[in-house]
Amino acid sequence: MLLQEIPKKEDILAAEKRIHDYVHRTPVFTSTQLNEMLGVNVYFKCENLQKVGAFKMRGASNAVLSLTKQQLKKGVATHSSGNHAQAIALTAKIAKIPSYIVMPQNAPEVKVEAVKKYGAEVIFCESNLMAREETLNDVIEKTGATFIHPYDNYDVIAGQATCAKEMIEDTDHLKAIFAPIGGGGLMAGTLLSSQYFGHKIPIIGAEPQGADDAYRSWKAGKLIQMENPNTIADGLRTSVGERNFPIIQDYITDIVTVSDAEIIEAMRLIFNYLKLVVEPSGAVPFASMMKTAEKYKGKKVGVILCGGNVDLKKLPF
Amino acid sequence: MLLQEIPKKEDILAAEKRIHDYVHRTPVFTSTQLNEMLGVNVYFKCENLQKVGAFKMRGASNAVLSLTKQQLKKGVATHSSGNHAQAIALTAKIAKIPSYIVMPQNAPEVKVEAVKKYGAEVIFCESNLMAREETLNDVIEKTGATFIHPYDNYDVIAGQATCAKEMIEDTDHLKAIFAPIGGGGLMAGTLLSSQYFGHKIPIIGAEPQGADDAYRSWKAGKLIQMENPNTIADGLRTSVGERNFPIIQDYITDIVTVSDAEIIEAMRLIFNYLKLVVEPSGAVPFASMMKTAEKYKGKKVGVILCGGNVDLKKLPF
Repeated sequence: MLLQEIPKKEDILAAEKRIHDYVHRTPVFTSTQLNEMLGVNVYFKCENLQKVGAFKMRGASNAVLSLTKQQLKKGVATHSSGNHAQAIALTAKIAKIPSYIVMPQNAPEVKVEAVKKYGAEVIFCESNLMAREETLNDVIEKTGATFIHPYDNYDVIAGQATCAKEMIEDTDHLKAIFAPIGGGGLMAGTLLSSQYFGHKIPIIGAEPQGADDAYRSWKAGKLIQMENPNTIADGLRTSVGERNFPIIQDYITDIVTVSDAEIIEAMRLIFNYLKLVVEPSGAVPFASMMKTAEKYKGKKVGVILCGGNVDLKKLPF
Repeated sequence: MLLQEIPKKEDILAAEKRIHDYVHRTPVFTSTQLNEMLGVNVYFKCENLQKVGAFKMRGASNAVLSLTKQQLKKGVATHSSGNHAQAIALTAKIAKIPSYIVMPQNAPEVKVEAVKKYGAEVIFCESNLMAREETLNDVIEKTGATFIHPYDNYDVIAGQATCAKEMIEDTDHLKAIFAPIGGGGLMAGTLLSSQYFGHKIPIIGAEPQGADDAYRSWKAGKLIQMENPNTIADGLRTSVGERNFPIIQDYITDIVTVSDAEIIEAMRLIFNYLKLVVEPSGAVPFASMMKTAEKYKGKKVGVILCGGNVDLKKLPF
């Protein structure tokens, strides 16, 4: 395996070009009413309006399109039942290559269908980490497909970085940007874009209290895996990856953890005032922002609405 | 009272200028997934993202800003508990004039608060038409305020017309535009913009089966009032107005009525695929479009998402 370095400015610029036809430049919205209520001017980067309904399309498409022709022919594989799986499947569909998604047998039917709809082959496994990895290895051995990790992958990080880059370009004078931390792909990308394109705007990590491994790892100065995460924000239950953590350590300004009640209230305000559908994970950065609103009175802050894939039957209000 | 004529092309152009700083030019969204599912390319004009969350801001602001200085000083009044009331209150707030909103005593607290938040004075009355009109007349007599009717008013119609005008400018080759019919303000404006700016694009009226007075009036060739409307689409329970009906008679291509089940399904798809919050009334045009999708296979159609003010506790899914 080649030694890799963290993505450079040029890598993110190259990613932006590479994925240009695969992703939307999502809009940035603000709500006068919400701003008056909070005393802060909040700009929302609407990745819930991204293809497949989440920022994951950026990293997945960059990683897939960075493969060699030889690799592309044999296809791509991942294990995920979430937005990354859909992003891999859609990228593969557009690029006309095969994709293989390993999913637990008990994955919700709606998620299985979402991936199949894009033409991916779904391979079921038992619902535990070992079975998942074994099944993925089997698939790779049999097909020669390349594994695209959901976050612990520099090409994925470079792709996710394009989100904050766009936001910085489209919104002047931001005093901070709030982004979520799950595996750390979006966060690492956001931190790098702040360094390279954003005059080092402070980046604030947002994490559910029930899955606060990034906060605890950051405080401890070493990676601590999350055991038994428990939060409504299902997209952020993952622990931070090995390639992601050092970037977080180097560049993050703060991490603000929030309760499920705070996440639900943030979600409700986004539905009510922005008229946007977000998933619980997508509301976490806004919840963190509201919790620290005093610091930003009269100022402009950015908040990444990272995804909108919520089961409408399970809305918490 | 001066004799008035239906709005001319110049009136709509003047309205557009007049309200420019009071409204958003709302975006037009489309969903690849939804289009593939339906076999139709559907373009949604997002008036749920308009100020106060509905197209009503266009007509209300045009009507208020068309008043003389003398009239403006004394303020404006209306009876409504819906989006028009909020639009009048917000316009009055921005224009720094008084506003008086007559509301039934049993209006939901959330709607009363929404209007008060904008600084309007709320005057309560009993919950029947006579009490409402008497109370409004009292308010007008006492304050000298000008009554702004929610739809049966040519300045309101000219304001609402700017919505379809923008959509026509921003979206090429539309084969039809679907718009809702409640009182007929948005519909009359849409029809006029199609005539003046849209090469007479066919305009299709969308109406709930439980409040189908426009459909029945159109078929009968005379205004028939709706008695006991019964539909989840609360914004469309009103009967068509006297100034609105002749414009509908002259220019409408078709009216497609839909059941509450069809409205709820349209709403669900909009939440799911467009990640947008719409109120039941806001989903009616899309429901009508889906019902007649066969006619538009492979073509481009426009759908006006007219509003997004829904009580999240009462979502039908």
